[in-house]
Amino acid sequence: MRYLLWLRYDGTRFHGWQRQLGDRTVQGELEEALTAILGRDYSIASSSRTDSGVHALRHPVSLRTDTTIPPLGLLKGLNSHCPQDMAVSEIWRAPENFRPAKSATGKTYRYRLLESIVPDPFEERYSWRRRGPIDLPAMVAAARHLVGHHDFSAFRAADCDARSPLRLVTGIHLERRGAMIIITLTGNAFLRNMVRIIAGSLVQVGLRREKPQWIAEILASRDRTLAGQTAPPQGLFLVDVNYPAEVLCHGAHHF
Amino acid sequence: MRYLLWLRYDGTRFHGWQRQLGDRTVQGELEEALTAILGRDYSIASSSRTDSGVHALRHPVSLRTDTTIPPLGLLKGLNSHCPQDMAVSEIWRAPENFRPAKSATGKTYRYRLLESIVPDPFEERYSWRRRGPIDLPAMVAAARHLVGHHDFSAFRAADCDARSPLRLVTGIHLERRGAMIIITLTGNAFLRNMVRIIAGSLVQVGLRREKPQWIAEILASRDRTLAGQTAPPQGLFLVDVNYPAEVLCHGAHHF
Repeated sequence: MRYLLWLRYDGTRFHGWQRQLGDRTVQGELEEALTAILGRDYSIASSSRTDSGVHALRHPVSLRTDTTIPPLGLLKGLNSHCPQDMAVSEIWRAPENFRPAKSATGKTYRYRLLESIVPDPFEERYSWRRRGPIDLPAMVAAARHLVGHHDFSAFRAADCDARSPLRLVTGIHLERRGAMIIITLTGNAFLRNMVRIIAGSLVQVGLRREKPQWIAEILASRDRTLAGQTAPPQGLFLVDVNYPAEVLCHGAHHF
Repeated sequence: MRYLLWLRYDGTRFHGWQRQLGDRTVQGELEEALTAILGRDYSIASSSRTDSGVHALRHPVSLRTDTTIPPLGLLKGLNSHCPQDMAVSEIWRAPENFRPAKSATGKTYRYRLLESIVPDPFEERYSWRRRGPIDLPAMVAAARHLVGHHDFSAFRAADCDARSPLRLVTGIHLERRGAMIIITLTGNAFLRNMVRIIAGSLVQVGLRREKPQWIAEILASRDRTLAGQTAPPQGLFLVDVNYPAEVLCHGAHHF
Protein backbone atom coordinates (compact mmCIF):
# COMPACT_ATOMS: atom_id res chain seq x y z
CA MET A 1 0.00 0.00 0.00
CA ARG A 2 1.22 3.45 -0.81
CA TYR A 3 0.39 6.61 1.12
CA LEU A 4 1.16 10.28 0.81
CA LEU A 5 2.06 11.88 4.13
CA TRP A 6 1.87 15.66 4.44
CA LEU A 7 4.49 16.85 6.91
CA ARG A 8 4.53 20.20 8.66
CA TYR A 9 7.57 21.34 10.62
CA ASP A 10 9.31 24.26 12.23
CA GLY A 11 12.79 23.92 10.68
CA THR A 12 14.61 25.92 13.38
CA ARG A 13 16.13 22.95 15.14
CA PHE A 14 16.38 20.59 12.15
CA HIS A 15 19.41 20.14 9.90
CA GLY A 16 17.05 19.95 6.93
CA TRP A 17 15.20 16.93 5.57
CA GLN A 18 17.89 14.41 4.76
CA ARG A 19 19.10 11.88 7.29
CA GLN A 20 22.64 12.60 8.49
CA LEU A 21 24.70 10.85 11.10
CA GLY A 22 24.84 12.90 14.29
CA ASP A 23 22.47 15.67 13.13
CA ARG A 24 18.79 16.00 13.95
CA THR A 25 16.87 15.89 10.65
CA VAL A 26 13.21 15.69 9.62
CA GLN A 27 13.77 12.33 7.88
CA GLY A 28 15.54 10.99 10.96
CA GLU A 29 12.69 11.98 13.30
CA LEU A 30 10.02 10.73 10.90
CA GLU A 31 11.78 7.38 10.55
CA GLU A 32 11.94 7.06 14.33
CA ALA A 33 8.18 7.62 14.54
CA LEU A 34 7.55 5.19 11.65
CA THR A 35 9.76 2.52 13.21
CA ALA A 36 7.92 2.89 16.52
CA ILE A 37 4.60 2.17 14.77
CA LEU A 38 5.51 -0.05 11.80
CA GLY A 39 8.77 -1.69 12.81
CA ARG A 40 10.77 -2.29 9.63
CA ASP A 41 7.72 -2.60 7.39
CA TYR A 42 8.03 0.67 5.46
CA SER A 43 10.02 2.68 2.97
CA ILE A 44 9.75 6.42 2.37
CA ALA A 45 10.70 8.96 -0.29
CA SER A 46 10.53 12.75 -0.17
CA SER A 47 9.49 15.32 -2.76
CA SER A 48 12.20 17.74 -1.67
CA ARG A 49 15.37 18.07 0.33
CA THR A 50 14.83 21.14 2.46
CA ASP A 51 17.92 22.87 3.84
CA SER A 52 18.89 23.32 7.45
CA GLY A 53 16.55 25.81 9.17
CA VAL A 54 13.93 25.90 6.40
CA HIS A 55 10.30 25.35 7.44
CA ALA A 56 7.49 23.43 5.74
CA LEU A 57 3.73 23.91 5.85
CA ARG A 58 3.07 20.95 3.53
CA HIS A 59 6.00 18.68 2.68
CA PRO A 60 4.93 15.50 0.83
CA VAL A 61 6.54 12.17 1.68
CA SER A 62 5.51 8.88 0.12
CA LEU A 63 5.18 5.87 2.39
CA ARG A 64 5.08 2.24 1.26
CA THR A 65 3.95 -0.25 3.87
CA ASP A 66 2.00 -3.50 4.22
CA THR A 67 0.56 -2.56 7.59
CA THR A 68 -3.09 -3.21 8.30
CA ILE A 69 -3.34 -0.17 10.59
CA PRO A 70 -6.03 2.10 9.09
CA PRO A 71 -4.81 5.55 7.98
CA LEU A 72 -6.51 7.42 10.82
CA GLY A 73 -4.79 5.17 13.36
CA LEU A 74 -1.50 5.69 11.54
CA LEU A 75 -2.00 9.47 11.64
CA LYS A 76 -2.65 9.50 15.38
CA GLY A 77 0.11 7.00 16.11
CA LEU A 78 2.74 8.87 14.12
CA ASN A 79 1.85 12.19 15.72
CA SER A 80 2.10 10.68 19.17
CA HIS A 81 5.71 9.77 18.29
CA CYS A 82 6.64 13.04 16.53
CA PRO A 83 8.54 15.77 18.41
CA GLN A 84 6.71 19.05 19.08
CA ASP A 85 8.32 20.88 16.13
CA MET A 86 7.04 18.41 13.53
CA ALA A 87 3.69 16.79 12.68
CA VAL A 88 1.98 14.62 10.08
CA SER A 89 -0.98 16.82 9.09
CA GLU A 90 -2.72 14.42 6.69
CA ILE A 91 -2.36 10.92 5.26
CA TRP A 92 -3.71 10.22 1.77
CA ARG A 93 -3.93 6.97 -0.16
CA ALA A 94 -1.69 7.27 -3.24
CA PRO A 95 -1.53 5.26 -6.48
CA GLU A 96 1.18 2.57 -6.67
CA ASN A 97 3.14 4.52 -9.28
CA PHE A 98 3.21 7.69 -7.19
CA ARG A 99 6.66 9.28 -6.82
CA PRO A 100 6.63 12.42 -4.62
CA ALA A 101 9.37 14.23 -6.57
CA LYS A 102 8.70 13.00 -10.13
CA SER A 103 4.89 13.15 -9.93
CA ALA A 104 4.93 16.79 -8.77
CA THR A 105 3.56 19.31 -11.26
CA GLY A 106 4.41 22.43 -9.27
CA LYS A 107 5.77 23.77 -6.01
CA THR A 108 5.14 26.87 -3.94
CA TYR A 109 7.69 28.48 -1.66
CA ARG A 110 7.31 31.56 0.51
CA TYR A 111 9.99 33.90 1.78
CA ARG A 112 9.13 36.26 4.66
CA LEU A 113 10.90 39.57 5.12
CA LEU A 114 10.34 41.73 8.21
CA GLU A 115 10.90 45.47 7.78
CA SER A 116 11.73 46.76 11.25
CA ILE A 117 14.43 48.39 13.32
CA VAL A 118 13.34 46.33 16.35
CA PRO A 119 13.22 42.56 16.68
CA ASP A 120 9.87 40.77 16.91
CA PRO A 121 10.10 37.78 19.30
CA PHE A 122 7.32 35.99 17.42
CA GLU A 123 8.93 36.46 14.01
CA GLU A 124 12.69 36.21 14.53
CA ARG A 125 12.67 32.48 13.74
CA TYR A 126 10.28 32.82 10.79
CA SER A 127 11.56 35.82 8.83
CA TRP A 128 14.59 37.82 7.73
CA ARG A 129 14.61 41.20 9.41
CA ARG A 130 15.92 44.24 7.51
CA ARG A 131 15.87 47.81 8.76
CA GLY A 132 14.42 49.13 5.54
CA PRO A 133 12.84 51.24 4.21
CA ILE A 134 11.87 48.59 1.65
CA ASP A 135 10.54 49.77 -1.71
CA LEU A 136 7.93 47.10 -2.49
CA PRO A 137 6.85 48.44 -5.93
CA ALA A 138 10.53 48.29 -7.01
CA MET A 139 10.70 44.66 -5.86
CA VAL A 140 7.51 43.86 -7.78
CA ALA A 141 9.00 45.43 -10.93
CA ALA A 142 12.21 43.44 -10.43
CA ALA A 143 10.42 40.14 -9.78
CA ARG A 144 8.58 40.34 -13.11
CA HIS A 145 11.84 39.62 -14.94
CA LEU A 146 12.09 36.20 -13.31
CA VAL A 147 8.69 34.86 -14.37
CA GLY A 148 8.87 32.42 -17.26
CA HIS A 149 11.19 29.72 -18.54
CA HIS A 150 14.78 30.78 -17.91
CA ASP A 151 18.32 29.56 -17.29
CA PHE A 152 18.62 30.28 -13.56
CA SER A 153 22.38 29.65 -13.31
CA ALA A 154 22.84 33.03 -11.58
CA PHE A 155 20.38 31.90 -8.88
CA ARG A 156 21.73 28.45 -7.99
CA ALA A 157 24.12 27.40 -5.25
CA ALA A 158 27.66 26.45 -6.28
CA ASP A 159 27.01 22.88 -5.05
CA CYS A 160 23.67 22.48 -6.90
CA ASP A 161 23.73 19.07 -8.59
CA ALA A 162 20.73 19.53 -10.95
CA ARG A 163 21.63 18.56 -14.52
CA SER A 164 19.83 21.48 -16.11
CA PRO A 165 19.69 25.09 -14.86
CA LEU A 166 16.46 25.65 -16.81
CA ARG A 167 13.37 26.15 -14.69
CA LEU A 168 9.87 27.50 -15.20
CA VAL A 169 8.78 30.13 -12.68
CA THR A 170 5.02 30.42 -13.10
CA GLY A 171 4.52 33.30 -10.69
CA ILE A 172 6.06 35.60 -8.11
CA HIS A 173 3.65 37.38 -5.84
CA LEU A 174 4.73 40.08 -3.37
CA GLU A 175 2.47 41.25 -0.60
CA ARG A 176 2.81 43.51 2.43
CA ARG A 177 1.02 42.65 5.68
CA GLY A 178 1.98 45.31 8.21
CA ALA A 179 5.75 45.19 8.61
CA MET A 180 5.95 41.78 6.90
CA ILE A 181 6.69 41.43 3.20
CA ILE A 182 5.77 38.02 1.82
CA ILE A 183 7.32 36.76 -1.42
CA THR A 184 5.47 33.74 -2.85
CA LEU A 185 7.07 31.83 -5.72
CA THR A 186 5.47 29.08 -7.77
CA GLY A 187 7.26 27.01 -10.37
CA ASN A 188 7.70 23.54 -11.77
CA ALA A 189 10.79 22.93 -9.64
CA PHE A 190 13.57 24.96 -8.07
CA LEU A 191 17.37 24.76 -8.09
CA ARG A 192 19.35 24.49 -4.88
CA ASN A 193 19.04 27.78 -2.91
CA MET A 194 17.19 29.35 -5.84
CA VAL A 195 14.41 30.90 -3.76
CA ARG A 196 16.84 32.22 -1.15
CA ILE A 197 19.15 33.77 -3.79
CA ILE A 198 16.13 35.33 -5.51
CA ALA A 199 14.96 36.72 -2.15
CA GLY A 200 18.46 38.03 -1.37
CA SER A 201 18.62 39.73 -4.78
CA LEU A 202 15.11 41.21 -4.60
CA VAL A 203 16.00 42.69 -1.21
CA GLN A 204 18.92 44.55 -2.84
CA VAL A 205 16.34 46.18 -5.11
CA GLY A 206 13.92 46.76 -2.22
CA LEU A 207 16.67 48.57 -0.28
CA ARG A 208 17.35 50.64 -3.44
CA ARG A 209 20.91 49.45 -3.75
CA GLU A 210 20.06 48.18 -7.24
CA LYS A 211 17.45 49.09 -9.87
CA PRO A 212 14.72 46.58 -10.88
CA GLN A 213 16.44 46.14 -14.26
CA TRP A 214 19.50 44.71 -12.45
CA ILE A 215 17.57 41.45 -11.87
CA ALA A 216 17.17 41.03 -15.65
CA GLU A 217 20.89 41.65 -16.09
CA ILE A 218 22.04 39.06 -13.55
CA LEU A 219 19.55 36.53 -14.92
CA ALA A 220 21.03 37.05 -18.42
CA SER A 221 24.60 36.84 -17.08
CA ARG A 222 24.06 33.32 -15.66
CA ASP A 223 26.77 34.30 -13.16
CA ARG A 224 26.07 33.47 -9.51
CA THR A 225 28.67 35.97 -8.30
CA LEU A 226 26.62 38.88 -9.68
CA ALA A 227 23.41 38.02 -7.77
CA GLY A 228 22.56 39.00 -4.20
CA GLN A 229 23.37 37.01 -1.09
CA THR A 230 21.62 33.77 -0.21
CA ALA A 231 18.90 35.00 2.15
CA PRO A 232 18.99 33.20 5.53
CA PRO A 233 17.00 29.95 5.86
CA GLN A 234 14.61 30.97 8.66
CA GLY A 235 12.54 33.14 6.28
CA LEU A 236 11.85 30.26 3.87
CA PHE A 237 8.78 27.99 3.88
CA LEU A 238 7.93 25.10 1.59
CA VAL A 239 4.24 25.98 1.27
CA ASP A 240 2.80 23.29 -0.99
CA VAL A 241 3.51 20.75 -3.73
CA ASN A 242 0.98 20.10 -6.50
CA TYR A 243 0.14 16.72 -7.99
CA PRO A 244 -2.05 15.76 -10.94
CA ALA A 245 -5.70 14.82 -10.57
CA GLU A 246 -5.08 11.03 -10.19
CA VAL A 247 -3.28 11.71 -6.93
CA LEU A 248 -5.76 14.31 -5.77
CA CYS A 249 -8.62 11.85 -6.40
CA HIS A 250 -6.96 9.36 -4.11
CA GLY A 251 -6.59 12.30 -1.76
CA ALA A 252 -10.36 12.33 -1.43
CA HIS A 253 -9.87 9.48 1.04
CA HIS A 254 -7.89 11.65 3.39
CA PHE A 255 -8.61 12.51 7.00
CA MET B 1 12.22 61.69 32.79
CA ARG B 2 9.46 59.17 32.42
CA TYR B 3 9.00 56.79 29.51
CA LEU B 4 6.49 54.19 28.49
CA LEU B 5 8.15 51.04 27.12
CA TRP B 6 6.04 48.67 25.04
CA LEU B 7 7.30 45.11 25.56
CA ARG B 8 6.60 42.16 23.30
CA TYR B 9 7.47 38.64 24.35
CA ASP B 10 6.96 34.97 23.68
CA GLY B 11 6.04 33.77 27.17
CA THR B 12 6.93 30.10 26.58
CA ARG B 13 10.19 30.19 28.51
CA PHE B 14 9.28 32.92 31.03
CA HIS B 15 7.84 32.40 34.51
CA GLY B 16 5.59 35.39 33.89
CA TRP B 17 6.37 39.07 34.44
CA GLN B 18 7.33 39.37 38.08
CA ARG B 19 10.93 38.98 39.25
CA GLN B 20 11.46 35.76 41.21
CA LEU B 21 14.63 34.35 42.63
CA GLY B 22 15.88 31.46 40.50
CA ASP B 23 13.22 31.75 37.78
CA ARG B 24 13.58 33.43 34.40
CA THR B 25 11.03 36.27 34.25
CA VAL B 26 10.28 39.15 31.88
CA GLN B 27 11.00 41.70 34.59
CA GLY B 28 14.29 39.99 35.40
CA GLU B 29 15.46 40.00 31.78
CA LEU B 30 14.29 43.60 31.23
CA GLU B 31 16.13 44.76 34.37
CA GLU B 32 19.29 43.05 33.16
CA ALA B 33 19.06 44.92 29.86
CA LEU B 34 18.28 48.22 31.66
CA THR B 35 21.19 47.76 34.06
CA ALA B 36 23.53 47.09 31.13
CA ILE B 37 22.55 50.43 29.54
CA LEU B 38 21.61 52.67 32.50
CA GLY B 39 23.48 51.18 35.45
CA ARG B 40 21.38 51.86 38.56
CA ASP B 41 19.76 55.00 37.20
CA TYR B 42 16.24 53.70 36.65
CA SER B 43 13.05 52.39 38.21
CA ILE B 44 10.25 50.52 36.46
CA ALA B 45 6.62 49.60 37.03
CA SER B 46 4.35 47.31 35.03
CA SER B 47 0.72 47.58 34.01
CA SER B 48 0.12 43.87 34.56
CA ARG B 49 1.55 40.75 36.11
CA THR B 50 1.31 38.17 33.37
CA ASP B 51 1.39 34.53 34.42
CA SER B 52 3.96 31.92 33.54
CA GLY B 53 3.74 30.99 29.85
CA VAL B 54 1.45 33.88 28.83
CA HIS B 55 2.55 35.97 25.83
CA ALA B 56 2.36 39.72 25.21
CA LEU B 57 2.07 41.69 22.01
CA ARG B 58 2.07 45.06 23.81
CA HIS B 59 2.85 45.06 27.53
CA PRO B 60 3.36 48.59 28.93
CA VAL B 61 6.10 49.26 31.46
CA SER B 62 6.90 52.69 32.82
CA LEU B 63 10.55 53.68 33.12
CA ARG B 64 11.90 56.56 35.21
CA THR B 65 15.47 57.55 34.50
CA ASP B 66 17.73 60.64 34.38
CA THR B 67 19.76 59.31 31.47
CA THR B 68 20.67 61.66 28.62
CA ILE B 69 20.58 58.81 26.09
CA PRO B 70 17.94 59.77 23.49
CA PRO B 71 14.95 57.40 23.25
CA LEU B 72 15.99 55.92 19.90
CA GLY B 73 19.42 55.07 21.31
CA LEU B 74 17.74 53.58 24.37
CA LEU B 75 15.46 51.48 22.13
CA LYS B 76 18.37 50.07 20.15
CA GLY B 77 20.55 49.57 23.20
CA LEU B 78 17.87 47.72 25.17
CA ASN B 79 17.05 45.45 22.25
CA SER B 80 20.70 44.58 21.80
CA HIS B 81 20.63 43.33 25.42
CA CYS B 82 17.25 41.56 25.27
CA PRO B 83 17.06 37.79 24.72
CA GLN B 84 15.53 36.55 21.44
CA ASP B 85 12.11 35.83 23.00
CA MET B 86 11.57 39.40 24.19
CA ALA B 87 11.86 42.89 22.68
CA VAL B 88 11.12 46.55 23.41
CA SER B 89 8.93 47.47 20.42
CA GLU B 90 8.50 51.19 21.13
CA ILE B 91 9.55 53.83 23.66
CA TRP B 92 7.23 56.78 24.29
CA ARG B 93 7.70 59.86 26.44
CA ALA B 94 5.15 59.75 29.27
CA PRO B 95 3.82 62.44 31.64
CA GLU B 96 5.38 62.53 35.12
CA ASN B 97 2.16 61.37 36.78
CA PHE B 98 1.86 58.33 34.48
CA ARG B 99 1.25 55.02 36.27
CA PRO B 100 1.01 52.04 33.88
CA ALA B 101 -1.60 50.17 35.94
CA LYS B 102 -3.65 53.04 37.39
CA SER B 103 -3.65 55.20 34.26
CA ALA B 104 -4.99 52.37 32.09
CA THR B 105 -8.54 52.83 30.79
CA GLY B 106 -8.86 49.41 29.18
CA LYS B 107 -7.11 46.17 28.32
CA THR B 108 -7.41 43.65 25.53
CA TYR B 109 -6.57 39.97 25.87
CA ARG B 110 -6.80 37.25 23.26
CA TYR B 111 -7.19 33.52 23.73
CA ARG B 112 -6.40 31.23 20.80
CA LEU B 113 -8.06 27.84 20.42
CA LEU B 114 -6.97 25.36 17.73
CA GLU B 115 -9.63 22.89 16.57
CA SER B 116 -7.68 19.93 15.22
CA ILE B 117 -7.01 16.25 15.75
CA VAL B 118 -3.38 16.76 14.68
CA PRO B 119 -0.80 19.03 16.27
CA ASP B 120 0.45 22.10 14.40
CA PRO B 121 4.17 22.67 15.07
CA PHE B 122 3.76 26.42 14.49
CA GLU B 123 0.81 26.77 16.86
CA GLU B 124 1.46 24.34 19.73
CA ARG B 125 3.12 27.04 21.80
CA TYR B 126 0.55 29.72 20.94
CA SER B 127 -2.82 28.00 21.28
CA TRP B 128 -4.85 25.39 23.14
CA ARG B 129 -5.63 22.48 20.86
CA ARG B 130 -8.98 20.69 21.18
CA ARG B 131 -10.21 17.90 18.94
CA GLY B 132 -13.59 19.52 18.42
CA PRO B 133 -15.95 19.81 16.71
CA ILE B 134 -16.35 23.28 18.24
CA ASP B 135 -19.73 24.98 17.95
CA LEU B 136 -18.75 28.62 17.48
CA PRO B 137 -22.29 30.10 17.37
CA ALA B 138 -22.98 28.44 20.75
CA MET B 139 -19.83 30.04 22.16
CA VAL B 140 -20.91 33.43 20.79
CA ALA B 141 -24.32 33.05 22.46
CA ALA B 142 -22.64 32.05 25.73
CA ALA B 143 -20.12 34.90 25.64
CA ARG B 144 -22.88 37.50 25.42
CA HIS B 145 -23.83 36.80 29.06
CA LEU B 146 -20.41 38.01 30.22
CA VAL B 147 -20.49 41.44 28.62
CA GLY B 148 -21.24 44.25 31.05
CA HIS B 149 -20.54 45.11 34.66
CA HIS B 150 -20.62 41.92 36.74
CA ASP B 151 -19.34 40.21 39.84
CA PHE B 152 -16.85 37.78 38.27
CA SER B 153 -16.18 35.73 41.43
CA ALA B 154 -16.93 32.53 39.49
CA PHE B 155 -14.14 33.43 37.04
CA ARG B 156 -11.28 34.33 39.39
CA ALA B 157 -8.43 32.20 40.69
CA ALA B 158 -8.59 31.11 44.33
CA ASP B 159 -5.43 33.16 45.04
CA CYS B 160 -6.70 36.33 43.34
CA ASP B 161 -5.91 39.25 45.67
CA ALA B 162 -8.09 41.94 44.05
CA ARG B 163 -10.28 43.69 46.61
CA SER B 164 -13.38 43.75 44.42
CA PRO B 165 -14.64 40.98 42.10
CA LEU B 166 -16.57 43.57 40.06
CA ARG B 167 -15.25 44.14 36.56
CA LEU B 168 -16.56 45.72 33.39
CA VAL B 169 -16.22 43.55 30.28
CA THR B 170 -16.80 45.89 27.35
CA GLY B 171 -16.70 43.25 24.63
CA ILE B 172 -16.07 39.62 23.74
CA HIS B 173 -15.43 38.93 20.10
CA LEU B 174 -15.15 35.40 18.67
CA GLU B 175 -13.72 34.73 15.26
CA ARG B 176 -12.73 31.67 13.26
CA ARG B 177 -9.68 31.75 10.98
CA GLY B 178 -9.33 28.31 9.46
CA ALA B 179 -8.87 25.85 12.32
CA MET B 180 -8.12 28.67 14.77
CA ILE B 181 -10.78 30.19 16.99
CA ILE B 182 -9.78 33.54 18.44
CA ILE B 183 -11.51 34.93 21.52
CA THR B 184 -10.80 38.64 22.08
CA LEU B 185 -11.84 40.22 25.38
CA THR B 186 -11.78 43.89 26.24
CA GLY B 187 -12.50 45.31 29.66
CA ASN B 188 -11.46 47.88 32.22
CA ALA B 189 -9.35 45.33 34.09
CA PHE B 190 -9.33 41.59 34.69
CA LEU B 191 -9.15 39.38 37.76
CA ARG B 192 -6.44 36.78 38.19
CA ASN B 193 -6.92 33.99 35.60
CA MET B 194 -10.24 35.56 34.57
CA VAL B 195 -9.59 35.32 30.82
CA ARG B 196 -8.34 31.75 31.07
CA ILE B 197 -11.31 30.61 33.19
CA ILE B 198 -13.70 32.33 30.75
CA ALA B 199 -11.93 30.58 27.84
CA GLY B 200 -12.07 27.21 29.64
CA SER B 201 -15.78 27.70 30.31
CA LEU B 202 -16.65 28.86 26.78
CA VAL B 203 -14.86 25.76 25.45
CA GLN B 204 -17.26 23.59 27.47
CA VAL B 205 -20.09 25.25 25.57
CA GLY B 206 -18.22 25.00 22.25
CA LEU B 207 -17.78 21.26 22.80
CA ARG B 208 -21.53 21.06 23.58
CA ARG B 209 -20.97 19.74 27.07
CA GLU B 210 -22.92 22.72 28.38
CA LYS B 211 -25.59 25.03 26.94
CA PRO B 212 -24.89 28.76 26.37
CA GLN B 213 -27.24 29.59 29.27
CA TRP B 214 -24.88 27.73 31.64
CA ILE B 215 -22.45 30.67 31.45
CA ALA B 216 -25.16 32.99 32.83
CA GLU B 217 -25.83 30.50 35.63
CA ILE B 218 -22.22 30.20 36.77
CA LEU B 219 -21.77 33.98 36.57
CA ALA B 220 -24.82 34.40 38.85
CA SER B 221 -23.58 31.67 41.21
CA ARG B 222 -20.29 33.56 41.91
CA ASP B 223 -18.90 30.07 42.61
CA ARG B 224 -15.52 29.29 41.00
CA THR B 225 -16.07 25.53 41.39
CA LEU B 226 -18.99 25.63 38.93
CA ALA B 227 -17.02 27.23 36.06
CA GLY B 228 -14.83 25.43 33.53
CA GLN B 229 -11.14 24.68 33.90
CA THR B 230 -8.47 27.38 33.70
CA ALA B 231 -7.42 27.17 30.04
CA PRO B 232 -3.66 26.60 29.65
CA PRO B 233 -1.42 29.69 29.50
CA GLN B 234 0.11 29.21 26.05
CA GLY B 235 -3.14 30.28 24.33
CA LEU B 236 -3.26 33.66 26.09
CA PHE B 237 -1.90 36.96 24.77
CA LEU B 238 -1.94 40.38 26.40
CA VAL B 239 -2.79 42.28 23.21
CA ASP B 240 -2.91 45.91 24.25
CA VAL B 241 -3.50 48.37 27.09
CA ASN B 242 -5.31 51.66 26.52
CA TYR B 243 -4.42 55.01 28.06
CA PRO B 244 -6.20 58.35 27.98
CA ALA B 245 -5.38 61.02 25.40
CA GLU B 246 -2.71 62.80 27.52
CA VAL B 247 -0.53 59.70 27.34
CA LEU B 248 -1.29 59.08 23.70
CA CYS B 249 -0.31 62.68 22.90
CA HIS B 250 3.06 62.11 24.48
CA GLY B 251 3.11 58.93 22.42
CA ALA B 252 3.25 61.11 19.33
CA HIS B 253 6.97 61.41 20.10
CA HIS B 254 7.51 57.70 19.68
CA PHE B 255 9.82 55.94 17.28
